[in-house]
Amino acid sequence: MVAHKCAQHNDELGRIAIASRNISKCQAIIDSINAKGSLKQPGELKAYAVNALDIEATKALIQETESQIVINVGSAFLNMSVLRACIDTGAAYLDTAIHEDPSKICETPPWYANYEWKHLDECKDKGITAILGVGFDPGVVNAYAALAQQEHFDSIESIDILDVNAGSHGKYFATNFDPEINFREFTGTVWSWQNREWTPNTMFEVKRTDNLPVVGEQSLYLTGHDEVHSLSKHLDVPNVRFWMGFGEHYINVFTVLKNLGLLSEKPVKTAEGLEVVPLKVVKAVLPDPASLAPSYSGKTCIGDVIKGQKDGQPRELFVYNVADHAEAYAETDSQGISYTAGVPPVAAALLVARGDWDAQQMQNVEQLPAKPFLALLDTMGLPTRIKEGERDLPWDQF
Amino acid sequence: MVAHKCAQHNDELGRIAIASRNISKCQAIIDSINAKGSLKQPGELKAYAVNALDIEATKALIQETESQIVINVGSAFLNMSVLRACIDTGAAYLDTAIHEDPSKICETPPWYANYEWKHLDECKDKGITAILGVGFDPGVVNAYAALAQQEHFDSIESIDILDVNAGSHGKYFATNFDPEINFREFTGTVWSWQNREWTPNTMFEVKRTDNLPVVGEQSLYLTGHDEVHSLSKHLDVPNVRFWMGFGEHYINVFTVLKNLGLLSEKPVKTAEGLEVVPLKVVKAVLPDPASLAPSYSGKTCIGDVIKGQKDGQPRELFVYNVADHAEAYAETDSQGISYTAGVPPVAAALLVARGDWDAQQMQNVEQLPAKPFLALLDTMGLPTRIKEGERDLPWDQF
Repeated sequence: MVAHKCAQHNDELGRIAIASRNISKCQAIIDSINAKGSLKQPGELKAYAVNALDIEATKALIQETESQIVINVGSAFLNMSVLRACIDTGAAYLDTAIHEDPSKICETPPWYANYEWKHLDECKDKGITAILGVGFDPGVVNAYAALAQQEHFDSIESIDILDVNAGSHGKYFATNFDPEINFREFTGTVWSWQNREWTPNTMFEVKRTDNLPVVGEQSLYLTGHDEVHSLSKHLDVPNVRFWMGFGEHYINVFTVLKNLGLLSEKPVKTAEGLEVVPLKVVKAVLPDPASLAPSYSGKTCIGDVIKGQKDGQPRELFVYNVADHAEAYAETDSQGISYTAGVPPVAAALLVARGDWDAQQMQNVEQLPAKPFLALLDTMGLPTRIKEGERDLPWDQF
Repeated sequence: MVAHKCAQHNDELGRIAIASRNISKCQAIIDSINAKGSLKQPGELKAYAVNALDIEATKALIQETESQIVINVGSAFLNMSVLRACIDTGAAYLDTAIHEDPSKICETPPWYANYEWKHLDECKDKGITAILGVGFDPGVVNAYAALAQQEHFDSIESIDILDVNAGSHGKYFATNFDPEINFREFTGTVWSWQNREWTPNTMFEVKRTDNLPVVGEQSLYLTGHDEVHSLSKHLDVPNVRFWMGFGEHYINVFTVLKNLGLLSEKPVKTAEGLEVVPLKVVKAVLPDPASLAPSYSGKTCIGDVIKGQKDGQPRELFVYNVADHAEAYAETDSQGISYTAGVPPVAAALLVARGDWDAQQMQNVEQLPAKPFLALLDTMGLPTRIKEGERDLPWDQF
């Protein structure tokens, strides 16, 4: 997905190197890009094998390929080693999800302070551009919040990020991205920022129902998520919450697996003495998220419900995007969830290349100019709209 | 459980040897027997370690202990090796469940013909007493069917075996015996004997609701089970079916696990390259069935609904037993399911020792005299009753 979008902009981004532990995955992506004729102009597109946990190997690859911008869309366990390789080689670093330690679930908030923000000073001292969490959520939804604060509110009381996938993959059960990461989001404490305090809940404890554009009425549940941990620091807002849409079937399967202990990251021993992490076995039996794309139908709706004051009056806006699974697949061989997560880091890379986001320091998305980002996303397949009551317009006409 | 009951009858059964792969399990049983003071008279009670798949080691143990009767209540995967050791040493063989090949699920009916009955001629030639499936079901329910045929019917149209555990273990989810065996019963084809033909169904496809003595109204589902595979051969009855009671919660958990592929006995490979059998991981996370005993409450009801003709009139009887989990635990440190399964083979061993069941050949329970078996069970904690309409009496007063 990311490589597809990079190829569509290779006039600005230049040579493209795709690296993974498994080089055949990279080659498959290159084949798909060539099949779609996605390269905007003739240019280099190469596959590399690298273990991104190996910092020296990653540095060597960055140097060999003369990469100036590294988009890390690998597992969330790799962030710190890839960031280190970027700092040491002077490359710009972009990622789309917070770092995780495979042995820990749901650490102390704010999560960014546990890993990424420990490198704030070093990035600033060395002039390293590091943009954290620039997928859709976190990422685009952070820009929505920044835009609202800068343009549409005098003061904000609450930011509620809503993430609904109203698509259908036709399988009994599947997660839309790596099940290991997906379930880890829901097994620990749900941290939200309420009344300027970190507030703990459990998953599926707090529910809301919204009637959303295009996808209609949806049930959403308070969920722990990356962007709550940076927006709460960077925007002066007393309430920041993240809500994810779930159907009854998803909740039932999740509840069964969790209650049985099958979502545990702690190894168990079988009667035969084999040590196994149950969650890894669950991952092994579930469909590969990438395999869902061809038959995925329906739409996603992700956005920010923002409440506050403007000119002495209460105001409520919904800043959002609707994406279509089948259109995403037709364009990039990816399903909608990969599309919404994969387009934004490429837009960010273009903004770094153009200078708009050449921050020379570590930043979360809400700290960067929102307008060039949203303007670029409009042209890249992820248009933003703003809804206020019955008024529903493209963000730049609002 | 079995050892407890043997100890209570060691005046007739003599020296008792308890063998398992894990000798500490045997020692724990001996400690429990001593704590309860279960030995009827002072006598030998010893623990041995043996891998029952190792035929030579098992033969050596039978010879060393001079065992004349072997009660095999190990995993269903061990039957053929233990039977071989008995045939070679001349010991009587008793088991409580059909042999299973770990790599196969639900083989061609009748199941006994795939393994056990291949040794019919050899047992007869050598005069080996081998009593197959002498637990509760299979086992006692086979005797119920035989009794009904011999005493209460001129012709039988159908035998429906009902197995309800209306007990509560207080856990989110648990199986009452080895989860590996438990789930294997429900993942393959459900074979029943209908209109004198083997009829395939799937699990939870066919439901019935019964109002049963003591436990009340229960939902039961057509299930594949051992006794259907011998009763269909030995009794001239056109319909033999087995039904097991399940609550909605059990069915939901089972359905989720099955649909996800987590009940599969075929290995999957994790992302890290580890080969794992999902079912073994599910077993590892579930409570050990033995651990359920102390807090188990409620009752089981297991019996045969038998329909046919007597003296030219249609007749319907329910021949059944009700057992209590807490009473079983008080007597033998075991829960009700282990109790109902563990007492009958000890009764059978006593009948072999006394000569009533010294068959000198391989037999299923319905081929042996039912009355001495049921009379003995009356005195050992598993009384039989017969219900016809509102009339409900001990079997020997009916």
